[in-house]
Amino acid sequence: MTTLHDQSGMTKQEIEQGSQFAPKFDANGLVPVVTTHAETGEVLMLAYMNDEAIKCTLATGEAHYWSRSRQELWHKGATSGQIQRLVDMRIDCDQDAIVIKVLPQGDGGCCHVGYQNCFYRRVTQDGLVEDI
Amino acid sequence: MTTLHDQSGMTKQEIEQGSQFAPKFDANGLVPVVTTHAETGEVLMLAYMNDEAIKCTLATGEAHYWSRSRQELWHKGATSGQIQRLVDMRIDCDQDAIVIKVLPQGDGGCCHVGYQNCFYRRVTQDGLVEDI
Repeated sequence: MTTLHDQSGMTKQEIEQGSQFAPKFDANGLVPVVTTHAETGEVLMLAYMNDEAIKCTLATGEAHYWSRSRQELWHKGATSGQIQRLVDMRIDCDQDAIVIKVLPQGDGGCCHVGYQNCFYRRVTQDGLVEDI
Repeated sequence: MTTLHDQSGMTKQEIEQGSQFAPKFDANGLVPVVTTHAETGEVLMLAYMNDEAIKCTLATGEAHYWSRSRQELWHKGATSGQIQRLVDMRIDCDQDAIVIKVLPQGDGGCCHVGYQNCFYRRVTQDGLVEDI
């Protein structure tokens, strides 16, 4: 089982180049997570994990997040069938952002609005334009 | 010039499916931004923009962020040469996360630790392992 360490007491070099997994959580105990498709590389969504969600994700091999709107652990796909099978988890230099690669199950969707991913609108000079 | 709207007063449908660009900023006035390489699709970094950084990015075609450590507008690459030329900006369903596609200039790097991108370590059962 992967151990989560505490950044306090670690040096900058240990955090940035060491092998201790020590996510830096924000004031709400969360870290942002970029979810990408393991086969296409596309960014599917951005969500948040707390300590428990990280542990559940690693233990089960399926993405778990912290739902900020419902304030509860969120096993992605538990109701929709859009389970995200974990392929890879990475953390950035200062350990305050995570990227996961997943294989979406069910109908392959991800976004609650009904799109394959959440970033279906491009920002243009005239506002947002759907572009999928 | 792209106008930034205020989400308050907009319906859920207007926010999720409309054409008004209305980023939802957090308590610190920031929105997380996933920066990807326009050619390879790889996730380079995760940073934050405020209202001004979004406007500067769109106006200049070069990524600007808000530096949380320095508490100032951060024109990425202004000192390192690692300017990020903007190719595309997208916003997600509830407009609280942005993805940009960029072409890194200078030596093509991105991360202050010296790697091509910030996600150079994989989370494994034995802790973090460098994997670039």
